[in-house]
Amino acid sequence: MKRNRIDSTGTKFNLDERDMPASWYNILADLPFELEPPLNPQTLEPVTPDELAPLFPATVIEQESSKKQFIDIPGEVLDIYRLWRPTPLIRARRLEKALGTPARIYFKYEGASPVGSHKPNTAVAQAFYNKQEGTSRLSTETGAGQWGSALAMACAFFGLDCTVYMVKASYHQKPYRRSLMQVFGADVISSPSSSTGSGRAILADDPESPGSLGIAISEAVEDVASSPGTKYSLGSVLNHVLMHQTVIGLEAQRQMELAGDTPTTVIACAGGGSNFGGLAFPFLKPVLKHRKHVPQPGALNSLSGITTPATSMPNDMAPKIIAVEPEACPSLTKGIYAYDYGDCSGLVPALKMHTLGHNFVPPGIHAGGLRYHGMSPIISALFNEGFIAARAVKQRAVFEAAELFARTEGIIPAPESAHAIRVAIDLAAECTETGQEEAILFGLSGHGYFDMSAYEAYRNGVLQDSVHPQSEIDKALAGLPKK
Amino acid sequence: MKRNRIDSTGTKFNLDERDMPASWYNILADLPFELEPPLNPQTLEPVTPDELAPLFPATVIEQESSKKQFIDIPGEVLDIYRLWRPTPLIRARRLEKALGTPARIYFKYEGASPVGSHKPNTAVAQAFYNKQEGTSRLSTETGAGQWGSALAMACAFFGLDCTVYMVKASYHQKPYRRSLMQVFGADVISSPSSSTGSGRAILADDPESPGSLGIAISEAVEDVASSPGTKYSLGSVLNHVLMHQTVIGLEAQRQMELAGDTPTTVIACAGGGSNFGGLAFPFLKPVLKHRKHVPQPGALNSLSGITTPATSMPNDMAPKIIAVEPEACPSLTKGIYAYDYGDCSGLVPALKMHTLGHNFVPPGIHAGGLRYHGMSPIISALFNEGFIAARAVKQRAVFEAAELFARTEGIIPAPESAHAIRVAIDLAAECTETGQEEAILFGLSGHGYFDMSAYEAYRNGVLQDSVHPQSEIDKALAGLPKK
Repeated sequence: MKRNRIDSTGTKFNLDERDMPASWYNILADLPFELEPPLNPQTLEPVTPDELAPLFPATVIEQESSKKQFIDIPGEVLDIYRLWRPTPLIRARRLEKALGTPARIYFKYEGASPVGSHKPNTAVAQAFYNKQEGTSRLSTETGAGQWGSALAMACAFFGLDCTVYMVKASYHQKPYRRSLMQVFGADVISSPSSSTGSGRAILADDPESPGSLGIAISEAVEDVASSPGTKYSLGSVLNHVLMHQTVIGLEAQRQMELAGDTPTTVIACAGGGSNFGGLAFPFLKPVLKHRKHVPQPGALNSLSGITTPATSMPNDMAPKIIAVEPEACPSLTKGIYAYDYGDCSGLVPALKMHTLGHNFVPPGIHAGGLRYHGMSPIISALFNEGFIAARAVKQRAVFEAAELFARTEGIIPAPESAHAIRVAIDLAAECTETGQEEAILFGLSGHGYFDMSAYEAYRNGVLQDSVHPQSEIDKALAGLPKK
Repeated sequence: MKRNRIDSTGTKFNLDERDMPASWYNILADLPFELEPPLNPQTLEPVTPDELAPLFPATVIEQESSKKQFIDIPGEVLDIYRLWRPTPLIRARRLEKALGTPARIYFKYEGASPVGSHKPNTAVAQAFYNKQEGTSRLSTETGAGQWGSALAMACAFFGLDCTVYMVKASYHQKPYRRSLMQVFGADVISSPSSSTGSGRAILADDPESPGSLGIAISEAVEDVASSPGTKYSLGSVLNHVLMHQTVIGLEAQRQMELAGDTPTTVIACAGGGSNFGGLAFPFLKPVLKHRKHVPQPGALNSLSGITTPATSMPNDMAPKIIAVEPEACPSLTKGIYAYDYGDCSGLVPALKMHTLGHNFVPPGIHAGGLRYHGMSPIISALFNEGFIAARAVKQRAVFEAAELFARTEGIIPAPESAHAIRVAIDLAAECTETGQEEAILFGLSGHGYFDMSAYEAYRNGVLQDSVHPQSEIDKALAGLPKK
């Protein structure tokens, strides 16, 4: 740690657009273990590229399993990234002061993108590759709407039609997210809908069904099968999606250099894992390279118990890396590492991942982006091998942290992002006790302008700390595919 | 024009935080005419600093009439500006391409601030001066909520209590803006309220009154009179407010240099005038200095009719400067230049300004920030003397421009800001016809995340092009104070 180089005055570390990364970091090249392959949901045999071809363009399928360490970002994608990238890296000096902590706290702010989250980093890339290969329309699903609005914008940029199956509950609760997609020209359909067989089957059974992400995925995939020129696009979980997000971490590394500092801890929230992977993977690169032995994995019950993934390395090469998830949907800390389906109908390939079971229905917490039963296969494997740590936090503690952050740094964080803030604050508060000088970097994946009703609920004291009983998790896990 | 220096690749021109302006530009130092003084609303005699002391801190009162050309920004204010400033200046290359225009279009984006508009530039300064002089609480009014949320944030930063009288119609129509203020700890009161005499009088007369900005101002001012330690804060119109906003134009000048370009036209929307003044004043500095003769003032009916304010100057020193207002509230293009009150009850000083009459009630257009009957005295005088041009635009044309902008540049503009976009697009389209190579700079004062219902109304075809009949303007103008 070259402490004497730390920028003693800087608050915002801006990169020039010319210093924006020109390639994505592909962690598959550096993993010291093999990932287990996705399986055909019917046969449970490894899926072939040919089987994926109806869903994704060839370049994306290739990227999904490529072992090339860096993959060039096409110029057309860079041109669009430049509208908001490089995003700011900010030292949270006012938060530090409020906590009286000796820790230095930095955050990388992806809410600066036009739709307010990190999602466009992959949406733009996927829309580009589809356009290049002749796709005329993309079909996808969205829960809270962050992903749907990112893809709608990307499609507007490339002149692609876009259909978004939006979970019915959100369609009605979040009309402004829906309007946002419509401003970009997308066709937004409340799911379950009468447009697809899966939708009609659900509606026949329960005309009042509020929908679920699992149902919406089934509808989006079925739409592809029946519409020539249409492909499917996913906003998290898969390898290529996480790779497209690594611009976040690559920029943050350069910006930490501008700050003259090196993070000792990197923290990000994880739902499907694209925000976490995007920030953390570039920081994991030296860890993977120097890895000599495997420490024990495991969930963290207290911060002082954080696993240091590679104790044999020099300190400045081994930041602690922590994925934060809600206690209401704890796929890393309470799920198991097994093959499971990505949707509840078993239409999409089964992935080896940390999962709570594809039938698990998380409580209606306000961090909609973290309500997914599974976790990216790469992140699941890294966790399983002990390279990263995980921590589950409660909803009210998350909003308490969000409010302190807003009142000190001004930005209203998305409830998802506030999970990372909670752990950053806890760690900084520990440093206040111990006097330890940590440099904490967390990912602020998005703003919370569309989540004010959640803040209202918190302020009015009606927000619940929903935790699913282990028995329900066990029940859902019992439904895993048997190979 | 040094055209050969134009950055042929850049899209986003970022300044380092060290290049942020350290002082505000005070245009009062350079005006080639004297402004007429504010008058006591009762006596209609010039107001004394002593009469303003109950409302504002001494430094603010001094700034209101200072002739010092540059006024240092306090370090405590700079520390907070750094959380989001310098804001980006972006070349709208994708919009240019969509229009097929030879014009170069740049925009300065203030929506990057935590509350999503330019308003914190003065809110933070005012909160600081109040804190410094021992104020413990600030009282203000807000219409759509942009100003209220900026002041609420600034008060949170300096540990001041904050009470915001929010126009009742907006209080119920924009609950999320209200929540935003509450997250920052502000007390938000629906106006008319039973907390003040003016509020009670209105409610006695009409218990269902939807409120108005004029009523809310009266309540906020009355609150100050009855509460020790409380002062009043205004978000536009006054000289010191516009001066605090000049960081926008000062940054934009440096960023245009980075782009190697010089704007030939500068465009901004104008309600009370703080956004327009903030961007335009620094660009007016050389114009005022070299001014030799006064061209005729007047509203513009067509873009080709734009007044060039100082034809005797070299072209690169005299950008055309255009204020854009809604046809529904056309204070510059249809109002008269006369003394008028700032509120509808005549409680605050009368100002010499372009006004539609303090009893004028504009139609309920979605650009709430542009629904004010008057205009900043400085801007009114500059317009009256022919230094700047003005143009009024219709609501639907504004949303049409906003949607094109969103689909090309990604950002959803605030309806207010989209007024500037409309004129920028019209001018760029003219260049497509004529082949003229303009460099257009417009101010994008905020994002529209809290205005999605307006976009929804536009998309559904229910948005009206409200224009007030001249007879109603004449009636309101008949109520002006007679000196």
